Amino acid sequence: MTTRKKSKPLILVTNDDGVTAPGIAALVESVRHLGTVVVVAPDSPQSGMGHAITIHDPLRLTHIRLFKGIETYQCSGTPVDCVKLAVDKILHRKPDLCVSGINHGSNSSINVIYSGTMSAAMEAAIEGIPAIGFSLLDYSFEADFTAARHYASRISEQVLKKGLPENTLLNVNIPKLRVSKIKGIKVCRQATAKYDEEFAERVDPRNNKYYWLTGKFVNRDNGLDTDEWALSNNYVSVVPVQFDLTAHHAIQHISTYF
Amino acid sequence: MTTRKKSKPLILVTNDDGVTAPGIAALVESVRHLGTVVVVAPDSPQSGMGHAITIHDPLRLTHIRLFKGIETYQCSGTPVDCVKLAVDKILHRKPDLCVSGINHGSNSSINVIYSGTMSAAMEAAIEGIPAIGFSLLDYSFEADFTAARHYASRISEQVLKKGLPENTLLNVNIPKLRVSKIKGIKVCRQATAKYDEEFAERVDPRNNKYYWLTGKFVNRDNGLDTDEWALSNNYVSVVPVQFDLTAHHAIQHISTYF
Repeated sequence: MTTRKKSKPLILVTNDDGVTAPGIAALVESVRHLGTVVVVAPDSPQSGMGHAITIHDPLRLTHIRLFKGIETYQCSGTPVDCVKLAVDKILHRKPDLCVSGINHGSNSSINVIYSGTMSAAMEAAIEGIPAIGFSLLDYSFEADFTAARHYASRISEQVLKKGLPENTLLNVNIPKLRVSKIKGIKVCRQATAKYDEEFAERVDPRNNKYYWLTGKFVNRDNGLDTDEWALSNNYVSVVPVQFDLTAHHAIQHISTYF
Repeated sequence: MTTRKKSKPLILVTNDDGVTAPGIAALVESVRHLGTVVVVAPDSPQSGMGHAITIHDPLRLTHIRLFKGIETYQCSGTPVDCVKLAVDKILHRKPDLCVSGINHGSNSSINVIYSGTMSAAMEAAIEGIPAIGFSLLDYSFEADFTAARHYASRISEQVLKKGLPENTLLNVNIPKLRVSKIKGIKVCRQATAKYDEEFAERVDPRNNKYYWLTGKFVNRDNGLDTDEWALSNNYVSVVPVQFDLTAHHAIQHISTYF
């Protein structure tokens, strides 16, 4: 275990695409100059895991060599498991920042609900750690992370300096553009969009049907203050996210039911 | 496939404990008099799956005989997969109500984030279906669902009659008490509580460490308007839940960062 200087900020890096994904290497590069970085990430892709935790299986944690000079572990569990294990078994204290990603593909709008990247950041926020999830709007393994690295670095630095409001984390999405084409950062709200699901039907060699989940993203929200608007207008979107899911505005109305 | 009369409400029943769990049988009994019930539930326990979806594996759907006179399917996926598959491949239309549960154990407070029961209901709500997740504060397989059945029936009937505000679902938790001991229903907000994690450490026969997730639920929220207050004061708690995770109150503050 490397010695961590106490004066430097301690930064936990995780993701949901797995420890070997190019996106997490880009994120390590984005934040390594800001403090002491420790990586704890899944040993296999965990996209779409949402806020899943592993309760019926034991968890494995393996110290690996992957990023030069960076203490790195892979974990057999979900992104949320990684954060829980990192705090309890590796760092032995709350880090000063948790960054998750850089995800290969968008986590804007309703994607925040399904995203392992965002759930890892949310778990950190629940534990009182300033946390940010980063995603690049490019699913390709060959994606160019240059602009994403630039903004991940800049936003992480601001959050380390200023903190975040209590019980809040950030959902950052970066458009698939060169840095020079990006107009800047927009702080915005989650667009009300959804997937129109379709399942691709196949038949196996024993003549049994099976299905693959597919779906078309449909944004019916015309607001100019949404993450979808920002992204399609060449801005980086930053949505402050909370884990109080109460629909406070509906409490009074629902009270009339009973 | 049974014929469904179009005049009767169509009710989708799902859960996260699996199709053979006692809680889903109790839920079927609670709502079968309210309309035509179709059950689509996981073929194995999926507790703690949060809003996970299955994207790297194909999904299987099997028509089974389990509840007398009730069309029932088991699915190889997560609770969210069950709802998506049910709407697209079985019902071929939006049901009039989706009920999920009755979960064996509490989904109050921060549990809503980790809960497969609630995520199934949330997925239905995202698709515009009035949806309710029910949980009984009793983890035992031998739990007495009498009071839970009573309230599941009553609340489902009200929601079928009155609908729910747009983009809202209900999180219902029922205390482990006899009906006569329950004081009534409180519509409330999610308490700000969390788990203090601890991992139980074990060593396998090859001398490698592994971990089991455990944790202690800690409620530091003294509000009298929370689900935790309601439950510990012998009320059924009903929290209206939303899937817009934007921390709207933080947008202005975060905007000053950039």
